[in-house]
Amino acid sequence: MANIAVIITDLFEDAEYSEPVAAFTKAGHTVVTVGLLAGAVVTGKKEETRVTIDRAVSDVSVDDFDALFIPGGYSPDKLRVDDNAVGFVREFMKRSLPVLSICHAPQILITARTLTGRKITGYKSIIQDIKNAGAEFIDRAVVEDKNLISSRNPGDLPAFIETSLRKLGSGT
Amino acid sequence: MANIAVIITDLFEDAEYSEPVAAFTKAGHTVVTVGLLAGAVVTGKKEETRVTIDRAVSDVSVDDFDALFIPGGYSPDKLRVDDNAVGFVREFMKRSLPVLSICHAPQILITARTLTGRKITGYKSIIQDIKNAGAEFIDRAVVEDKNLISSRNPGDLPAFIETSLRKLGSGT
Repeated sequence: MANIAVIITDLFEDAEYSEPVAAFTKAGHTVVTVGLLAGAVVTGKKEETRVTIDRAVSDVSVDDFDALFIPGGYSPDKLRVDDNAVGFVREFMKRSLPVLSICHAPQILITARTLTGRKITGYKSIIQDIKNAGAEFIDRAVVEDKNLISSRNPGDLPAFIETSLRKLGSGT
Repeated sequence: MANIAVIITDLFEDAEYSEPVAAFTKAGHTVVTVGLLAGAVVTGKKEETRVTIDRAVSDVSVDDFDALFIPGGYSPDKLRVDDNAVGFVREFMKRSLPVLSICHAPQILITARTLTGRKITGYKSIIQDIKNAGAEFIDRAVVEDKNLISSRNPGDLPAFIETSLRKLGSGT
């Protein structure tokens, strides 16, 4: 089964963290929360879901994981200013390990300069940013482009989870 | 004196609204809040400053104003999904009317596709988005490029307000 890093900080979109993580763990995968400070508790933007950070991004290696999951909300905006977070995300893309992106998650993929020539979807507010990054924006519930799986918003969660589980099951 | 449209919605950065608006009105300018719904009360993200929206963006014309002010925080992310808001901002840029941009405000200028070849600063999380939009990012407290005045964050407010007041005083 896969060991999945979930990169997350405050103001994440609650359901975009909770529902995939519940489905991944139920399927037997291991989930490790990676954030700016180990032991910190971060909070979702709507329901104030509280998540404890297992490992600091400054203190982990991509070698420890099989896949990366990036929940949306305003968490990616806060993570993309941190060089370690950006470097961590870039390395997953570079190694073509499964990267599961939803909502505003493409923001950190943009800062990591990993989207040129890729097919991706994301939250409607960042469509122009995705296009300007050299990616092809596709307005669909889930887009699968090699290692990269992406969805637009919480309404896409069933399709996102189904496609992600298939990828995690076969690819790792 | 100038009639200034302030385009704003929920989760704006409190000080980036309050301090410039206080300075602009003190100097004798008129400030009109423009948002998604007239009469709605929108709330800042830190101090929960409450601001009543004077006019709906679907119901205003750039002809009614001399200048545009775009406070930061997550307000621009929410505004850039609204076609009327994007069109309103685009028109100020097209007419070279003064546009005062701080923090995340360049996000809506990006969606309006108005930044190609322009010099601008903004919040550090969106630097790559600004560059990908074809603009030159300048890491300075305030950047003045023809009609466009921009700053990075609340720490830049004194320089932002001083430069904006000079622009409003001479340019309108």
